[in-house]
Amino acid sequence: MLKEISITTHRRTEFIEITNLIQKIVRETKVDNGICYIYVPHTTAGITINENADRSVIEDIQMELNKIVPFDDDYSHSEGNSSAHIKSSLIGNSVCVFIENNSLKFGTWQGIFLCEFDGPRNRKVWVKIIKE
Amino acid sequence: MLKEISITTHRRTEFIEITNLIQKIVRETKVDNGICYIYVPHTTAGITINENADRSVIEDIQMELNKIVPFDDDYSHSEGNSSAHIKSSLIGNSVCVFIENNSLKFGTWQGIFLCEFDGPRNRKVWVKIIKE
Amino acid sequence: MLKEISITTHRRTEFIEITNLIQKIVRETKVDNGICYIYVPHTTAGITINENADRSVIEDIQMELNKIVPFDDDYSHSEGNSSAHIKSSLIGNSVCVFIENNSLKFGTWQGIFLCEFDGPRNRKVWVKIIKE
Repeated sequence: MLKEISITTHRRTEFIEITNLIQKIVRETKVDNGICYIYVPHTTAGITINENADRSVIEDIQMELNKIVPFDDDYSHSEGNSSAHIKSSLIGNSVCVFIENNSLKFGTWQGIFLCEFDGPRNRKVWVKIIKE
Repeated sequence: MLKEISITTHRRTEFIEITNLIQKIVRETKVDNGICYIYVPHTTAGITINENADRSVIEDIQMELNKIVPFDDDYSHSEGNSSAHIKSSLIGNSVCVFIENNSLKFGTWQGIFLCEFDGPRNRKVWVKIIKE
Repeated sequence: MLKEISITTHRRTEFIEITNLIQKIVRETKVDNGICYIYVPHTTAGITINENADRSVIEDIQMELNKIVPFDDDYSHSEGNSSAHIKSSLIGNSVCVFIENNSLKFGTWQGIFLCEFDGPRNRKVWVKIIKE
């Protein structure tokens, strides 16, 4: 089983919460216990787990990443999106979340975010579940 | 099976080795071969695998992360811990280690560290094992 | 089943694509569907998934990482390779890739790279597969 989600991003840098979309997939599989893998098949986007209560947190993450890895910095790649590739490798392109009682098990403040670093674009997210 | 470990941290930034605690859980499960997932259910902490022989290594990692992501940098999040959220996404909130012969299989110098970025706090670490 | 690959690096910083080596292992196992874990048992190297079409992308990633984490920065670790340990924790020491129809399933531009941060050296990569 491999499930695919489609996401449209609207800005050059944008974190979009996909927790509910992943939870829905887990529910449909009826798997009680296991691990859910969420994988981004792109090289200028990433995926991360962070706070989903106060939106200023993910705004600060985006702001600071753009300081740490500037959009322009004498890169050699001619497409002009090297900073997005670098951020993708720093943040990573997959996360895993435990499944307990047919539900994703998060810490109190955790949600899953697709990290757009070279938008706007149409993006895919792949999901696979391994039973315990 | 989901196991939970409790850790108390004592400083704002602190890496605490938890290798032996995870190894003990693996032994108790009697699983011969598989993968052990270690997951931090927090958004201002992380988890990493790095050298556990010379403590100066993890001190250097902490020092440099605090340079790359300053504690104060015109963040908008009002709780004053944005740098911790950013470091959490850079380091990541889970790692996996292979299990062979009912033992975690590490490289020579590797150990697992809980990364506190907003302490002191009481933290949890969740562990799940998938049999091969 | 744990498979080991040996890689020789030739520069202090070097990303070496290992996609085909991992694909070959997957084929030989004859596993149709599952997850392939690729784990680096070193603390001064890492592993990442990024673009394998235009080599300037991985050159830019290496260049920028060396700016973000300088080789020399008043580190306390006496071996002179603290920057490599720090990069290892930022990039991470494992990735996972889905297996579908006995083949690694990548996005269009994705490949797997061993990230040497303290070469030249002889490195190992460990591979384990979990069936779905």
